[in-house]
Amino acid sequence: MRLTPQQLEQFDRDGYLFFPGLFTPEETRTLTDAVPDLYARREAYNVREKGSDAVRTNFAAHLTSEPFARLARHPRMVQPVMDLFDEEVYMHQFKINGKMAFEGDVWQWHQDYGTWLNDDMMPTERAMNVAIFLDDVNEFNGPLMFIPGSHKKGVVEAKHDLTTTSYPLWTVDNELIAKLVERAGGKDGGIVSPKGPAGSMILFHSCLVHASSSNLSPWNRVSVYLSLCAVSNHIRRFKRPEYIAHRDFTPIACLPDDCLLQPYPVDVPWKNGMPASALATTSEPFDQLKKAA
Amino acid sequence: MRLTPQQLEQFDRDGYLFFPGLFTPEETRTLTDAVPDLYARREAYNVREKGSDAVRTNFAAHLTSEPFARLARHPRMVQPVMDLFDEEVYMHQFKINGKMAFEGDVWQWHQDYGTWLNDDMMPTERAMNVAIFLDDVNEFNGPLMFIPGSHKKGVVEAKHDLTTTSYPLWTVDNELIAKLVERAGGKDGGIVSPKGPAGSMILFHSCLVHASSSNLSPWNRVSVYLSLCAVSNHIRRFKRPEYIAHRDFTPIACLPDDCLLQPYPVDVPWKNGMPASALATTSEPFDQLKKAA
Repeated sequence: MRLTPQQLEQFDRDGYLFFPGLFTPEETRTLTDAVPDLYARREAYNVREKGSDAVRTNFAAHLTSEPFARLARHPRMVQPVMDLFDEEVYMHQFKINGKMAFEGDVWQWHQDYGTWLNDDMMPTERAMNVAIFLDDVNEFNGPLMFIPGSHKKGVVEAKHDLTTTSYPLWTVDNELIAKLVERAGGKDGGIVSPKGPAGSMILFHSCLVHASSSNLSPWNRVSVYLSLCAVSNHIRRFKRPEYIAHRDFTPIACLPDDCLLQPYPVDVPWKNGMPASALATTSEPFDQLKKAA
Repeated sequence: MRLTPQQLEQFDRDGYLFFPGLFTPEETRTLTDAVPDLYARREAYNVREKGSDAVRTNFAAHLTSEPFARLARHPRMVQPVMDLFDEEVYMHQFKINGKMAFEGDVWQWHQDYGTWLNDDMMPTERAMNVAIFLDDVNEFNGPLMFIPGSHKKGVVEAKHDLTTTSYPLWTVDNELIAKLVERAGGKDGGIVSPKGPAGSMILFHSCLVHASSSNLSPWNRVSVYLSLCAVSNHIRRFKRPEYIAHRDFTPIACLPDDCLLQPYPVDVPWKNGMPASALATTSEPFDQLKKAA
């Protein structure tokens, strides 16, 4: 799957591209079926909702679960990102966000690259967010909301919100959100919310400002959020544990296009549990670590 | 404004009727302009959001503010309700719900009549909810969600939720919500969410199960929620204070259709503050009160 010049232009202007139904129901089911077992595990990589047992986000499933290890190497997902960066990519972050029926809480307005810069010392914005729907997404189950064009502002000011939800987030000030929405068209397109069947994919810029509302509906809205980073742009600090911000900068080698349905061999290094090193952190920049070594 | 046989049938089937743009922008503005002053008052009748100064709900504005006193007597609102009940009505409850930009929190799934029965001893369901939009309502600012036909179940089981938000509410169990949504069509119409410009009106049955999500958008979604009760169906207990559940069962006398724009005289008894009696409560049923008097 290669991007057209129109798609490249659209991505530059809006900061995202939407591919409804990119993965078939059969392909998607291999992923959805693997989620309950992952969510049931009592491991650091499962962050639960405030005051509830529902999983808010699961980390590093591509290292703990075979179906997700395959997805992490899927050419329909990886190739367009390499096209956009004109470079090979590695997996910086891999999350399965629950947004479970009745329980799924909000994600406040934020940019992802702000965190990657501040916490992980990722040098530039050359990392891409990929959302893959494991459930149908409609207006009632807390769809992702984007402010089109907001990626053009680069990294904007943010404050570290440690209280609103169970997951700490660098969130953007309300006044700035109001300005960005107004600039993007106000009530006429200033916020957009791609909806579609399970198996749909969104690519979105690491500086695109986004949020999602709570899910009061009886329908789960489980999504995979991958962050693919250009290899030359790898992070320079290991302040966050490895299961959140990965340290293996090896370029992704894609599997064939039918990899979700065929048993190609794939490595699942943490399938029997995380190594102690996955929890280790340091606040020293990578350069100093290398010098010390 | 009289309801057609088709509208009466639709109300019976779905439990609600939607009238987009029923009040003109000029009429609506007389109401919207009066809200900031009402919300600024430090009075018991303003309930604020949990951990925030934003108003979640304001009570009894028809007794404290002239524009809302006019709305409470508007024939475009009152006449259809009298048509549906074939009886005169009085004002049981009058709220202006904030659902303010960025701050507006969820209202969990609930029915209103459950509260009126349990707390106020209202004998039957012959009371109508009326929602009037003071702001444009779109998919992003926490629109009201209904489960069509759910009013046919009568009063369903509910538990008293005192913790989720700042306002106590008898909320319906998740499992029952899932069943009701499935019965109403599941993802194909099992939840509906009327959206439209400021000035739109919804009439909905007092047993219709409804909810609304949080408002993360930069757009306020202020709405007036009126509850008109058939006079013969007046409440029998004053367990809740009068500013929440009213005790004046006098039938509403409508003003002319242009009452939001013309200075017809109107009574605003609490404009200089609430009387002490508005805060008094008793758990004794009305019949016993009458006997004792």
